[in-house]
Amino acid sequence: MAETITFDPSTHPHRRLNPLTNEYVLVSPHRTKRPWLGQTEPPQASNLPEYDPQCYLCPGNARAGGQRNETYNNTMIFENDFAAVLPPPCPAPPPAPHPLLTTEPVHGGCDVLIFHPRHDLTLARLSVPDIERIIEEWRTVYKKRGTQEDIAYVQIFENKGAMMGCSNPHPHGQVWSLSAIPSLPGSELTNMRRYSLTDVPPSGAPRGPLGRPCMLCEYAHFEVGASSEQGRVVVKNDDWVALVPWWAIWPFEVMLLPYKRHVPSIAHLTPAEKSSFADILSKVTKRYDNLFSCSFAYSMGIHQRPVLPKEDVGLPDDQDEDNIAHLHLHFSPPLLRSASVRKFLVGFELMAEPQRDLTPEQAAARLRACSEVHYLDRDGVQE
Amino acid sequence: MAETITFDPSTHPHRRLNPLTNEYVLVSPHRTKRPWLGQTEPPQASNLPEYDPQCYLCPGNARAGGQRNETYNNTMIFENDFAAVLPPPCPAPPPAPHPLLTTEPVHGGCDVLIFHPRHDLTLARLSVPDIERIIEEWRTVYKKRGTQEDIAYVQIFENKGAMMGCSNPHPHGQVWSLSAIPSLPGSELTNMRRYSLTDVPPSGAPRGPLGRPCMLCEYAHFEVGASSEQGRVVVKNDDWVALVPWWAIWPFEVMLLPYKRHVPSIAHLTPAEKSSFADILSKVTKRYDNLFSCSFAYSMGIHQRPVLPKEDVGLPDDQDEDNIAHLHLHFSPPLLRSASVRKFLVGFELMAEPQRDLTPEQAAARLRACSEVHYLDRDGVQE
Ligand SMILES: [Zn+2]
Ligand SMILES: [Zn+2]
Repeated sequence: MAETITFDPSTHPHRRLNPLTNEYVLVSPHRTKRPWLGQTEPPQASNLPEYDPQCYLCPGNARAGGQRNETYNNTMIFENDFAAVLPPPCPAPPPAPHPLLTTEPVHGGCDVLIFHPRHDLTLARLSVPDIERIIEEWRTVYKKRGTQEDIAYVQIFENKGAMMGCSNPHPHGQVWSLSAIPSLPGSELTNMRRYSLTDVPPSGAPRGPLGRPCMLCEYAHFEVGASSEQGRVVVKNDDWVALVPWWAIWPFEVMLLPYKRHVPSIAHLTPAEKSSFADILSKVTKRYDNLFSCSFAYSMGIHQRPVLPKEDVGLPDDQDEDNIAHLHLHFSPPLLRSASVRKFLVGFELMAEPQRDLTPEQAAARLRACSEVHYLDRDGVQE
Repeated sequence: MAETITFDPSTHPHRRLNPLTNEYVLVSPHRTKRPWLGQTEPPQASNLPEYDPQCYLCPGNARAGGQRNETYNNTMIFENDFAAVLPPPCPAPPPAPHPLLTTEPVHGGCDVLIFHPRHDLTLARLSVPDIERIIEEWRTVYKKRGTQEDIAYVQIFENKGAMMGCSNPHPHGQVWSLSAIPSLPGSELTNMRRYSLTDVPPSGAPRGPLGRPCMLCEYAHFEVGASSEQGRVVVKNDDWVALVPWWAIWPFEVMLLPYKRHVPSIAHLTPAEKSSFADILSKVTKRYDNLFSCSFAYSMGIHQRPVLPKEDVGLPDDQDEDNIAHLHLHFSPPLLRSASVRKFLVGFELMAEPQRDLTPEQAAARLRACSEVHYLDRDGVQE
């Protein structure tokens, strides 16, 4: 009798589909057959000063453009001196020299948001009230930029760590506002809209506007319900869940989203949801730092409704079809096995399809095993 | 009278569409208003030995799997000891636990192709006949793997340089053969097929099978015809053109393709086209090394017809609809301004859309200005 092999997702190569982008990731779990031995390197101390006279983001210091920062106490926002997009007027490109060579005009603005006056802190070491002030700034800039004439999209993101090409460790993020919706969120919105028009049987998950199904409400509801030792949920609180998505590309990629109701954007958060957002951001970033006892590098981006309506037309949220977007954050960290071993997206991944060895379930289990007390704040660790 | 501003692609931010992927790249040329001063760092000498007793790719040495390399004289191919995909049998995954969590089985094989016995050489320093032998190996493995039962796609690629995570400098590439077509070439094929079904007026460009228009025949024909000081062509020979595509993401990205006739795959090359392929590969990689006087890092991938027909059905090439693919190579190099300043695809680019400062036209001009004599082979440079 022929032996039948049973499929084991932590043994057999397979591909998983990302329904947000409609692209696959190749999973090669047989390449990680070593047991996980946990952290072996000593914790990295923070050698950064609380204030750096050379840092253009520290309070009172001069920026590249010549202006001087206020002596701010919480957050501070300013326009980037080297913005990737510029305000109008923006001359229209000439007709395409060939139908395959098309140019689209674009304009907008780029803001820098300093998270805190302390040069040496990060989201992982800020207090929850400090993080809530950052969320409030994100809401303010999203509303302000998003209601400007011709701004079609506001991308809030953070790029953290020298490994991600971020040259300044002072805690800060960026906000790029554009007259066009960029490719990746555009593709996510297209796929979410398509999903909302399909026939999804009741699952107990919340629904989007007009009672239509929401891909991320369905997905988060399933993951929270299926949560187990084999699952992908890292941590959840009253409103938010952090999970390693089924289709994750980066070894310890995390998606963070509200799961109790359909939330189109950060502007739609209730005060309680705003507080629990700060709480889970703190918990996720602490776990990240504790994973390899280092300041964990990542790119983080907020995907949501591209902009709010330019003017209030009195439409209730659940009647506005443009609320089909579901607020979520992507964390894309490059670290793989230790504070110094990183994943490169090159070769086959650049030319064909992303590939990972560690399964999302294994990554989630490792993040679940991490403490929510930051390693630098534990007894016996000297800064 | 209001002053009218004329659009200048080297001054005004804009977006360009990549018709192969249907995704945009954001171009911010105003951020490179500095004049190009050319190379300022001294040329990097090569410190590598011709033979390294520790290298698992050098002739006669032992590999990780325990096997010993032959004392090969030209190229050598072997199956990767740590393959990302495995040969069948491959158990079928169970039904999806939720419609959004789909798994697709995948199998196949991964080969390593050593380009040359010399540990210290690269494509840029191999002779044209040596490169032609590599092309012949690519053709052999493409035919062999591609006609294996259930293999749907053969991806030939090279990952060069520590900056690209390549740990061994011994000149080599890889070939991953899969039972499924990966996301990126799949998307390119979909868009090329769609284009072939549109109504494209005669342009003088070659046509694909069944007399239908081919996106890359049209594009290459236009670029070669428009070639000028402002153009994107880097170098061309009798059959091949190397250009910085209109929609390039990487600073010095290059696309290499045949422009005189529609060529679906490396198996379809005439002997003359094979020789001119080796010639232009040598010229492009020499220019790359000369740009910053260093061994230039990149990922290179060959995109073509996914596999040849499993058996000869006697259909002429120009009647076979699956010949819609047009053979082309992508070179994705990370270097930006010098041998040590790289571009990172992070932050906005990871979360929203690729972005570049230098325009493709400026990049092409710099590559055109490079010599085709390798800097290590010039008088006065000591190895
Ligand atoms: Zn939702
Ligand atoms: Zn063609």
